Amino acid sequence: MENIKENKKKEKTQKKKKQAGKVVKAINKDLKFNSAKIDHNKGKKENKKTLKVRFLGGVGEIGKNMTALEYGKDIIVIDAGVTFPSDNMPGVDLVIPDVNYLAENKSRIRGIVITHGHEDHIGGIPYVMKDLSAPIFGTKLTLTLIESKLKEHKLSDVSLNCVKPGSVIKLGCFSVEFINVNHSIAGAVGLSITTPVGVVFHSGDFKIDFTPVNGETMDLNRISEIGNKGVLLLMADSTNIEIEGTTMSESVVKDTLDHVFADNSKKRLIIATFASNVHRLQQILDLAVKYKRKVAFSGRSMINIAEAAAKIGELNIPDNLIIDVEKIKNFKNEQVLIVSTGTQGEPMSALTRMASGEFNKVVIGNNDTVVISASVIPGNEKMIYGVINNLYRLGAEVIYESLEPIHVSGHACRGELRVLHSLIKPKFFIPVHGEYRHLKKHARLAEEIGVKNTNILIAEIGDTVELTEKTMKFGEKFVAGSRFVDGVGIDGADSFVLRDRIHLSEDGLVVVVAGVDEFTAELSSLEIIGKGLVLNENMIVDVKSNVINTLSHIDLKSVRDENELAGIIRRSIKNYIFKVTKKNPMILPIVMVV
Amino acid sequence: MENIKENKKKEKTQKKKKQAGKVVKAINKDLKFNSAKIDHNKGKKENKKTLKVRFLGGVGEIGKNMTALEYGKDIIVIDAGVTFPSDNMPGVDLVIPDVNYLAENKSRIRGIVITHGHEDHIGGIPYVMKDLSAPIFGTKLTLTLIESKLKEHKLSDVSLNCVKPGSVIKLGCFSVEFINVNHSIAGAVGLSITTPVGVVFHSGDFKIDFTPVNGETMDLNRISEIGNKGVLLLMADSTNIEIEGTTMSESVVKDTLDHVFADNSKKRLIIATFASNVHRLQQILDLAVKYKRKVAFSGRSMINIAEAAAKIGELNIPDNLIIDVEKIKNFKNEQVLIVSTGTQGEPMSALTRMASGEFNKVVIGNNDTVVISASVIPGNEKMIYGVINNLYRLGAEVIYESLEPIHVSGHACRGELRVLHSLIKPKFFIPVHGEYRHLKKHARLAEEIGVKNTNILIAEIGDTVELTEKTMKFGEKFVAGSRFVDGVGIDGADSFVLRDRIHLSEDGLVVVVAGVDEFTAELSSLEIIGKGLVLNENMIVDVKSNVINTLSHIDLKSVRDENELAGIIRRSIKNYIFKVTKKNPMILPIVMVV
Repeated sequence: MENIKENKKKEKTQKKKKQAGKVVKAINKDLKFNSAKIDHNKGKKENKKTLKVRFLGGVGEIGKNMTALEYGKDIIVIDAGVTFPSDNMPGVDLVIPDVNYLAENKSRIRGIVITHGHEDHIGGIPYVMKDLSAPIFGTKLTLTLIESKLKEHKLSDVSLNCVKPGSVIKLGCFSVEFINVNHSIAGAVGLSITTPVGVVFHSGDFKIDFTPVNGETMDLNRISEIGNKGVLLLMADSTNIEIEGTTMSESVVKDTLDHVFADNSKKRLIIATFASNVHRLQQILDLAVKYKRKVAFSGRSMINIAEAAAKIGELNIPDNLIIDVEKIKNFKNEQVLIVSTGTQGEPMSALTRMASGEFNKVVIGNNDTVVISASVIPGNEKMIYGVINNLYRLGAEVIYESLEPIHVSGHACRGELRVLHSLIKPKFFIPVHGEYRHLKKHARLAEEIGVKNTNILIAEIGDTVELTEKTMKFGEKFVAGSRFVDGVGIDGADSFVLRDRIHLSEDGLVVVVAGVDEFTAELSSLEIIGKGLVLNENMIVDVKSNVINTLSHIDLKSVRDENELAGIIRRSIKNYIFKVTKKNPMILPIVMVV
Repeated sequence: MENIKENKKKEKTQKKKKQAGKVVKAINKDLKFNSAKIDHNKGKKENKKTLKVRFLGGVGEIGKNMTALEYGKDIIVIDAGVTFPSDNMPGVDLVIPDVNYLAENKSRIRGIVITHGHEDHIGGIPYVMKDLSAPIFGTKLTLTLIESKLKEHKLSDVSLNCVKPGSVIKLGCFSVEFINVNHSIAGAVGLSITTPVGVVFHSGDFKIDFTPVNGETMDLNRISEIGNKGVLLLMADSTNIEIEGTTMSESVVKDTLDHVFADNSKKRLIIATFASNVHRLQQILDLAVKYKRKVAFSGRSMINIAEAAAKIGELNIPDNLIIDVEKIKNFKNEQVLIVSTGTQGEPMSALTRMASGEFNKVVIGNNDTVVISASVIPGNEKMIYGVINNLYRLGAEVIYESLEPIHVSGHACRGELRVLHSLIKPKFFIPVHGEYRHLKKHARLAEEIGVKNTNILIAEIGDTVELTEKTMKFGEKFVAGSRFVDGVGIDGADSFVLRDRIHLSEDGLVVVVAGVDEFTAELSSLEIIGKGLVLNENMIVDVKSNVINTLSHIDLKSVRDENELAGIIRRSIKNYIFKVTKKNPMILPIVMVV
């Protein structure tokens, strides 16, 4: 039996290998392209005998994961993610890692290795690739998602190289083996990186799913082999370190969803999920077939990703299953399943517009059951619960995470992390992918399992960790941090701009326009405009009096320049405005010499 | 044994009754004050035979609870809470219910009955009492907390009337019985209100704690009696309707905390908790005594509330236990417990300042264990986790909700709600205290237990529900909603002001000051100022050219007024600015005729 299974697995893998070749440029283990660059460094004496691990993102935070390994003249980069702006970044669209250090050393970068296709691992690519140039390596779905991003940003000259779990590539002095792991997206890998000082194992985002939808459990046997040969450094996902036990299998969701289909046989079904979770999507499509429903995709990213995933063979869409969302009116409620974006209550998503009655193609009512098959990303609670409340108000039944296992996490809980640690048995450990509290707890877990306390470091963004075969210590700090994507692109906003935006949003604005006669230096006109605060007519009269009164006591000819006068005007009304409004608005005096 | 316990309970109650009399004006069942007003309506024929329940807050939302009951000329109000502003209300301090309807009918209000002293039940009082005048009724701690609010707002003429659980007061045609319930604050009550059409039972916020810290379990016997006599309408707390089972007893926290004290015998302990949770505070003080630590309170509200609670006998503080926080340096780490505010990561709280190293009195380090004995209020996640991360960075050990039962909820879960419903057996049911999703789920639970589907209504703010002995239906809508407390007070911001603030914070501002010659109507000067977006010098030059170019094609003499000219200027640069910044800033053209 075991043998039969093994063979079947091999067949499957080989079949996949063939498919992969068609989609994106496949590479062999001996890595033909970029060989010039790599040769360039071959044979050179290594003066620096330490491996440097540089943290550009994903430590001390959840999001924008990015780490670089550096030895001698070679650098490889792991992931390039984004994070979403927090409350104190109004108007900012995205936050990406500051890759200044890498840009300065861009000729040394041998490759960018991507663990999987989630935004916090690939979202930064189109931005950082404006400053960097290096081949990108990833599995099929990962590259497909990256490709569509690059297209959007009109970046056509990035080299994308498809790898398969189990394969090994050589990048300068590093050789990188891709290890199949389970996660909430297909094609997720961990990395076993052989460096001149030893093996570095990076888990990527992972969970251990013993009954995964595609049958391919995380490659624990290979991980065990690697562990037995000796691992110098483990870096592992800390996202779920605060949850005891193990994460449920993706297959559990199918059972719950099957009940939902069975219980709602007379109603129209709408399921919102992440487009990139193709295994979830596959289960949903399979149930649609079982329960004889047509499927309409709703939301641009759902359509795009489903199509792309089907094209590369990661999603199996039976013929005649999909209908255009415009056509749903031609079918009875019980014949339709709408699969939609919007699990996080994103303002412009299909589900949000359905809930607010602004989506003509899908009008929600008593005959709808809406399933939100995702968890709430921290910070999105108000938005998604707003959508759920509105769906209920429209009469729909809503099924979400509160009382039913309609979603499972993609990250390992403490039980699974213990398994990883005991298979890898690393000499050194650095927890990654987590806020400081997660990293700290993960460090403790590693210690419990056997890593010496002194062999564990908690790194933050901008930290360099230096390793030899026997030692690990902090090296120099390097320039790193966050850059804001805002409006047209990177650095559309800096910290001063953000400070102004926050100031304006909290306290509003008072513009004072003072016309000063060029010859007499007398105040010839005065305009007061308030925005974002309540300034009634009486207050405006008082503000004017304050300015006029202050200026009447000053010889305007003695005022050095317009800036000095602006300062005088600002001070003349600041206290009054605070007294009557209890606000400190931005005061913008504009002096016009007329 | 049972009898001894019973007697002890009685003794306790009588002792408390005595103490209460000393603190705030105690009242008897026959309610001597305000009798004129009440008599005024006695014996009058009731023309309107329906009871009207008006929802001013706390339905379709969690927060700012406020409900009014109206029959004939009599109105009573239940609670007057606040809620905290959401992300789309920048600069707003608090949100309170719009009490316009009550203000217009203020002579008819016989009393404001408060279920307990949490902000979402009492926080609105100092604001709404500027528009209303009616006596306020509540238990000891509730009134103590209200009193300090009124003092802060310099409102001295509000009549505060202390009631005890078990007592009954008559307010117009209503008689209100106060029923002891358990909650995360002392002195919480439910209300059994006898009206001309039947009994209305309002649960307040509650849980059923069979081992409460003060020994007084929710009065299930009395509730059962009331249920047996027949309840027309039940309104009950829906906060935890999404959680199966029952809420843990407050006593559980003591066990966890006891372990924390035992395990950290060599370290300084800092426990953050809600000041108003006096039972939690009592348990913490008891443990300090047991483990021979001195207690220093930190944070203004912690000191104030602890003192007030001790004064009215709700908190027992042994002599020589409390030390000033300035004195902690005179004791060894293991002799000190600091009890602090800041469980929600509030920016100015003691704990937040400790975590950011800005609190000189308590410098955090390796020898500290910090316990956060509270749950995270939705929306505060980023703030409190930021504090936790910083405490870890400073070397402290942090114990919070993630893995240990260091806090229990104050709200009934589904199991407890089923108990309440089956004891009350109401004819009609309206779920309260919850977002729409909670209300909907609570409605279903009521139906499962036996309330007819047609006898359940889900009300929203501004809804009136009309009841007779036999019917319940929606009546007319009334003016209700939210008012913003911002800066100086109520309506410091309206929706227009907020719209401007959000616009400014997302997209920034461009001010265009154009001087136009009074006689020639020619452009004499032009200033461009950008705030909250990046406008570099080239862009400013281009913006100016756009304005000049547009105006050069217009006969300025033909322009009607400055507003029209401002519009022309705005349109002339809007597209350009969007093109170069991908932002739509607020454009503020100011035309000065000079």
